[in-house]
Amino acid sequence: MLSNSLPKDAALRTRALQVIPGGMYGHLNVARLPAGYPQFFARAEGATLWDVDGNAYVDFMCAYGPMILGYGNREVEEAAAAQRALGDVLTGPSERLVELAEKLVGMVAHADWALFQRNGTDATTLCVVIARAATKKRKILVASGAYHGSAPWCSPNPIGSTAEDRAHLVHYDYNDVESLLAAAKSVEGDVAGVIASAFKHDYGKDQEMPTKAFAQAVRKLCDDTGAALILDDVRAGFRLDLGGSWQTVGVKPDLAAYSKAIANGYTLGAVTGCDKFREAATTVFMTGSFWCGAASMAAALKTLEIFQRDNTIARIETLGNRLRNGLAAQAKSHGMVLKQTGPAQMPTVLFADDPEVEKGRLFTQEALRGGAWLHPQHNMFLSSAHTEADIDKALQATDAAMAVVKKSFGRD
Amino acid sequence: MLSNSLPKDAALRTRALQVIPGGMYGHLNVARLPAGYPQFFARAEGATLWDVDGNAYVDFMCAYGPMILGYGNREVEEAAAAQRALGDVLTGPSERLVELAEKLVGMVAHADWALFQRNGTDATTLCVVIARAATKKRKILVASGAYHGSAPWCSPNPIGSTAEDRAHLVHYDYNDVESLLAAAKSVEGDVAGVIASAFKHDYGKDQEMPTKAFAQAVRKLCDDTGAALILDDVRAGFRLDLGGSWQTVGVKPDLAAYSKAIANGYTLGAVTGCDKFREAATTVFMTGSFWCGAASMAAALKTLEIFQRDNTIARIETLGNRLRNGLAAQAKSHGMVLKQTGPAQMPTVLFADDPEVEKGRLFTQEALRGGAWLHPQHNMFLSSAHTEADIDKALQATDAAMAVVKKSFGRD
Repeated sequence: MLSNSLPKDAALRTRALQVIPGGMYGHLNVARLPAGYPQFFARAEGATLWDVDGNAYVDFMCAYGPMILGYGNREVEEAAAAQRALGDVLTGPSERLVELAEKLVGMVAHADWALFQRNGTDATTLCVVIARAATKKRKILVASGAYHGSAPWCSPNPIGSTAEDRAHLVHYDYNDVESLLAAAKSVEGDVAGVIASAFKHDYGKDQEMPTKAFAQAVRKLCDDTGAALILDDVRAGFRLDLGGSWQTVGVKPDLAAYSKAIANGYTLGAVTGCDKFREAATTVFMTGSFWCGAASMAAALKTLEIFQRDNTIARIETLGNRLRNGLAAQAKSHGMVLKQTGPAQMPTVLFADDPEVEKGRLFTQEALRGGAWLHPQHNMFLSSAHTEADIDKALQATDAAMAVVKKSFGRD
Repeated sequence: MLSNSLPKDAALRTRALQVIPGGMYGHLNVARLPAGYPQFFARAEGATLWDVDGNAYVDFMCAYGPMILGYGNREVEEAAAAQRALGDVLTGPSERLVELAEKLVGMVAHADWALFQRNGTDATTLCVVIARAATKKRKILVASGAYHGSAPWCSPNPIGSTAEDRAHLVHYDYNDVESLLAAAKSVEGDVAGVIASAFKHDYGKDQEMPTKAFAQAVRKLCDDTGAALILDDVRAGFRLDLGGSWQTVGVKPDLAAYSKAIANGYTLGAVTGCDKFREAATTVFMTGSFWCGAASMAAALKTLEIFQRDNTIARIETLGNRLRNGLAAQAKSHGMVLKQTGPAQMPTVLFADDPEVEKGRLFTQEALRGGAWLHPQHNMFLSSAHTEADIDKALQATDAAMAVVKKSFGRD
C-alpha cells in the first residue's frame, strides 16, 4: 500500500460535523495531525489497524497506550467474556475486585491497598483528594507542562475552568531539584502532595527519564513534610517496571495512579497506596456507576498474569529497540539528525532543527502512506503484539519517508 | 429462600479489608446498609442477582441504574460482542461514534450534537466546563442536596476537596422559584449555568417531580441571562422520556448529561447540547483513554433501538406500578403508612414517622431475607426484565417484612 485513499472517512467526517462539535473531540481528534490521517477505524487485530476505507497500518500509538498485548488478545478477551457471561456492572462488586486488589498489592512495590475507577483522570484526581484528606493541606506540586488528565484542575486547556480550579497547584520543573524545593518553600506548611509522571513525556518535547537525584529529592521532601508522593503511572504503567515505574530509580511513591494498559484496552483505572494513606482513603467519597464492573477487572487479572508469565516488558523493549535502531541507521544513511528519546517501549521521535515540526509532519505523513501510523509529536507506544515483521515493514515505510524529508529539506 | 447465609461473603470481606481501604468504597459499600446485605455478587441474569453464597435476589437497584433491559440482555450483548470482535478502544473512533451521536440527536428533543465520556461525573463536569466556556462566566446554580457526581467540585463528601473546588457553586432549593431567583440575583452578571436533576431524588428524602413553574423559571432565567440550562439526566435518563426527562414538563435544556442506563450496563457517558453551545464545545479539552470505546457505543445503539421498538419506559412504569400498588395495599392491610414517591420506574419507599429509618431498615432487611433487594433510603430502579412473577415474589417478601415491622413498631 503506497497511498491511503479515504473516501469513506471523508463521508463520515461530513456526517460527524453535523452531530459532534467540530466533528471530533479530545486526543483522538486528527485535526492537528498532517493531512491523510484517517479519523475513523473499522477494525484492529494484533498491532494492525484498518481504517474505514480498508487501509492497513502498523499502529505505533496502541490506542494511545491501552493496547499492550495486541488488539483482540485471545486470552484477555476470553477472560473478560467469561466474566461478562456471569455479570459485569451489578448492584455490588464481584470477587474479581478483591482478586485484582490482591494482585496489584502483590505486584506493585509500594502498594498495600488498591482502589478502582474508570479513567486515568479519575485515578490522578483520587490521589490528590486522598493526599489532601490525609494531610489536611491544600497545595499540590506539579511539573510544568506535565499531563495529569483533563478535569478542570489539570486539563492542559484552561478554557471552561476557573482560576480557583487551579488555585492550589504550584509548579516545578521535572528533574530540577532546586525548582522542586523552591516550589515547596513558596507554600511551606501547606503541601498536600507532589505529583510526578513516571518520566517526562510532555507533548512535542524530548522525553526525559527521571534522575535518581530528582526522585530521591521528591521522596525526601515528602518524608520531611508528610506530603504524599503521587506517581502518575497512567501512561507508563506496566511498560517500564511491573513494580511501578519508579522502581527503575529505586523510589517508592505513597500513591500511584494507573489506567491505560492495565487491562489491555478494557476500561479501568486504579489507585494504589501505602498503609500511611489507608485511613485517609476510607474517609473520601469518589465513585462511579461502572467503577466495579467485573469484566474489566477479569481482563486486568489476565493481562497482569500475562505480563508476569511472558516477561512482556522485555519483549516490548526489544521491539522498541529494533524500531529505534532501524530509525537511527536510516537517519544516518540519509544524513538526517533524529532525536529519539524516552524508553524504547514509549519512544518520542523528533527531528533536529525542526521547531515547527515541518520535517516531523512530512515524515509521519509519508510513513502513514507506507502503512505505519506514527505520531509526529506525541510519545508512541509499542506492544508485545508487534512482530519483527511489523517493525521491519514500518521501517520500509520510514526509510522511504525519510528520503522524502531529505529531498524536501536537504541535510538535517 | 427465607434466610441468606453469607459465609463466602464474610470470607471475601476479610480478604478485602487487607487490600481495599475499609474493605469497600463508594456507593456500592454496604457498610451503611442493615446487616445481612451481601457485599459481593457471583452472577446476574434478567432481574435476578446471586450473591457469592448462592442466594438469589430480585434486584430493585439495577446496579444503581445502569441495568434497564436486564442483566445479560441477549441483543445488547450480541451487539457489543460483534463490535468487540472488530475493535473497541483503538487509536481513533469507529463509525459507531457518528451513528450514536446521530441516534441521540434524533431522539433527544433539545439535542443538536453529542459528546461521549465514560462516567456520569465526566458528563456533568463537561456540561459545567462548556457552560463556562460559552458564557465566560463562573457561577453554577445547583440545588441543595442534589447529587451531580463525586468529583471534588460536586462530591457530597467534601473531605479531600478544597474550598476553592466549590467556590463558584451557589445553592437554590429544587422546585423553589424564589430561591432560584435569589441565588441568581446574589451573583448577578456571573451566572454560567443552572444545573438541575431530572427530578429531586436526594438520598433519604421523599422524591419530588419538577413543577412546570420551576422548570419554566429555570428556562426563563437562562434565556434572560445567557446561562446554560444543564439537565442532569444521568440517573433518570431513558426511564422517564426518551426525548429527555424534562420533556415531561415541556422544557428543553441547553446541555444534558447522560450515563447509567444508556448502554444497559456498558460503561458510557454522554453530553447532548443545542446549537447555541456547539462552538463553545469545540473550544474545551476533556478526553479519556477509553472515551471512544466502540463496544459500549454499539451496546448503546442497540439499547436505544430497543427502547424505541419495545416502548420500554411504559413497560417499566407498569411494573413499577405493580410494585407500588402492591406495597400500598400491604401497608394498608398492616395498618402502616408508607411514603412512595417519585416515578414508579424509580421509586423511593420510606415509612412515615421514621426519622432514624429504623422501620425502613428492618423492612428492607427482612425483605432481603425473603429474596428482594430493596434500598431503605436511596431511590430504586425497575427494569423491563422484571417480570410480573418477579414483582409478585418480591411482594411476598415485603408482606412478610411488613408484618415484622408492624410487630416491632406497632401502628405506623
